[in-house]
Amino acid sequence: MRQDGFTIGVDLGGTNVRAAVVDEQGHILGADRHRLQSREPPQVAEAIVRASKTACAAAGIPFAEARGMGVGVAGMIQKGTGMVLNGPNLGWRDVPILKLLAARTPKIPLFIANDLSAAVWGERMVGAGKGVDDLLVVLVGTGVGSGMVQGGRLVTGGSGVAGEFGHIKINPVAFDPSKPSQAGRLCGCGMRGCLEAYAGGQNLAAWARDDLRIGAAAQRAAGQPVTAGKRLLELVNGDPEKITAAAMERAAHLGDELSRRLLDEAARLIGFSLGNLLTVLNPTKVLLGGGVLANSPRMTRLVIEAVDLYASKVARAACSIGAPALGDDAGVVGAALLAREAA
Amino acid sequence: MRQDGFTIGVDLGGTNVRAAVVDEQGHILGADRHRLQSREPPQVAEAIVRASKTACAAAGIPFAEARGMGVGVAGMIQKGTGMVLNGPNLGWRDVPILKLLAARTPKIPLFIANDLSAAVWGERMVGAGKGVDDLLVVLVGTGVGSGMVQGGRLVTGGSGVAGEFGHIKINPVAFDPSKPSQAGRLCGCGMRGCLEAYAGGQNLAAWARDDLRIGAAAQRAAGQPVTAGKRLLELVNGDPEKITAAAMERAAHLGDELSRRLLDEAARLIGFSLGNLLTVLNPTKVLLGGGVLANSPRMTRLVIEAVDLYASKVARAACSIGAPALGDDAGVVGAALLAREAA
Repeated sequence: MRQDGFTIGVDLGGTNVRAAVVDEQGHILGADRHRLQSREPPQVAEAIVRASKTACAAAGIPFAEARGMGVGVAGMIQKGTGMVLNGPNLGWRDVPILKLLAARTPKIPLFIANDLSAAVWGERMVGAGKGVDDLLVVLVGTGVGSGMVQGGRLVTGGSGVAGEFGHIKINPVAFDPSKPSQAGRLCGCGMRGCLEAYAGGQNLAAWARDDLRIGAAAQRAAGQPVTAGKRLLELVNGDPEKITAAAMERAAHLGDELSRRLLDEAARLIGFSLGNLLTVLNPTKVLLGGGVLANSPRMTRLVIEAVDLYASKVARAACSIGAPALGDDAGVVGAALLAREAA
Repeated sequence: MRQDGFTIGVDLGGTNVRAAVVDEQGHILGADRHRLQSREPPQVAEAIVRASKTACAAAGIPFAEARGMGVGVAGMIQKGTGMVLNGPNLGWRDVPILKLLAARTPKIPLFIANDLSAAVWGERMVGAGKGVDDLLVVLVGTGVGSGMVQGGRLVTGGSGVAGEFGHIKINPVAFDPSKPSQAGRLCGCGMRGCLEAYAGGQNLAAWARDDLRIGAAAQRAAGQPVTAGKRLLELVNGDPEKITAAAMERAAHLGDELSRRLLDEAARLIGFSLGNLLTVLNPTKVLLGGGVLANSPRMTRLVIEAVDLYASKVARAACSIGAPALGDDAGVVGAALLAREAA
């Protein structure tokens, strides 16, 4: 163990809890990961402590010597209180996770953050954004999110909900109530026309199912053979419910027009929204990641092409675009390093 | 004079230079304003020093006792060097204004900022954004710009060009080169589909001229009497070149359909873009100002309605929307207070 001690980083998702013992260089000295048995807040708090202790044991370090514990939670964190206002994947509303943890680890300073903020901080400190004071990380997976560092500091927003890149609306008529025929796709947040409603993995699949139905109906009505999304359907054994963004990506490679069109459109919309963020925020580096993009060099290329098209020239010229470096470790490492700063 | 001294704030536009002696409370103790006789950089530097000395004389304070001088310049400032990379209203490219001023006032610490950043800082410190750590100021006048404070700090961006709200693209097809029929309006920056190309005062007038021509041609072609924008044309004595955003506002009040439609559309586009910024940045206060909006309570109302429609619910709920309080003084006061912080 190094002289300046270690902190614990926790990444709490809707399914798993991960914990790691992290030194001041961001190295993971020991880690644990296990599936949540329950999403009840007290049980989750217990699971976090258990995972942390297991990680310490793996590192051969006493839990009581941790200088702090940072917990990244998949949800909206209230600034200052460590309360999870809304954690859809956990089914949480107004859960005082800081309080629940403090009761179980009274001697260890705690820090609660949004999981994406923690991951961004990990990349900023020891990953692909190391040393970058104006950094933007965009992750396109099941959901679409972002995290920002500006002037070397994590941006959390006035009430802690900054970074909702996936809920940018993609165009001004997308859900204008006076023009229902142009209404945008419905997002999980309840609004219409959000970027995530098009580009998030689950929503991409739903979009493909809708377009399959519409395309097939149109071909039937025209007395044509039904070919819309044929290759995609073959890949999922004819069951539209089994369509995923990954299946669409494979189908697109096999020449499936429908999959290709939707993935390309999603990439263009991501790039459009990202280009506008470049124009306003002027980051010097953007990291593009998340399952959907990591799985698709073609989409990533199209995102960058759209950024080139839409961002202001001076902002684009100042910005390089790359990929995150820490993968799944970003969250635990970032949470641990945030706890170190807060301690 | 107060114990902790005074600083000088300068606001350099394309036409005028203003200077003020400002105390630590943001009070103006003396001021000067005069028209630039030349836009040659050395002459402008002289004019800035002269205005500053006149302001000191008006306040009865020796110039040499200034603790610092902050200069807000209408242009793009290079971070760290005080170089004006691009100041379209001054016709400047790569002008080392900091160096030119330092040669003339060797003993006074200098600070160069974008004029809008200076104005935002003025509002943040002693205006309508006093005490607000996450503040967004949007000004719609001849141009469309914004300035941001996040976590209590002015956001300048990685290379100093953050805040270009007017160059957000308003929708993904607005200037897609593959769809020229849907191409957006041309912006002064050379790109198409920028918010400013629709909502900036000069561009609003150009838009009205274009729509007048198109509307009149269509009515003529249909053998109808030419009524498009009739009231607006009357207000400018039949000369389309005299159309201004202010004339459009008056015409709209008199029932001119064309003026009303364009102003309303501009307001909706401002609100759309602003709503998306709320979603990503989560400010707790927005100040809406600038000549076009200050002149039009109806547009301001429509902007807010569009923000309500497009911003994510949680971000909107956390944010109040008001107007700037300092008017033309914001720039000099903000520049002076920035110099105080930098000193």
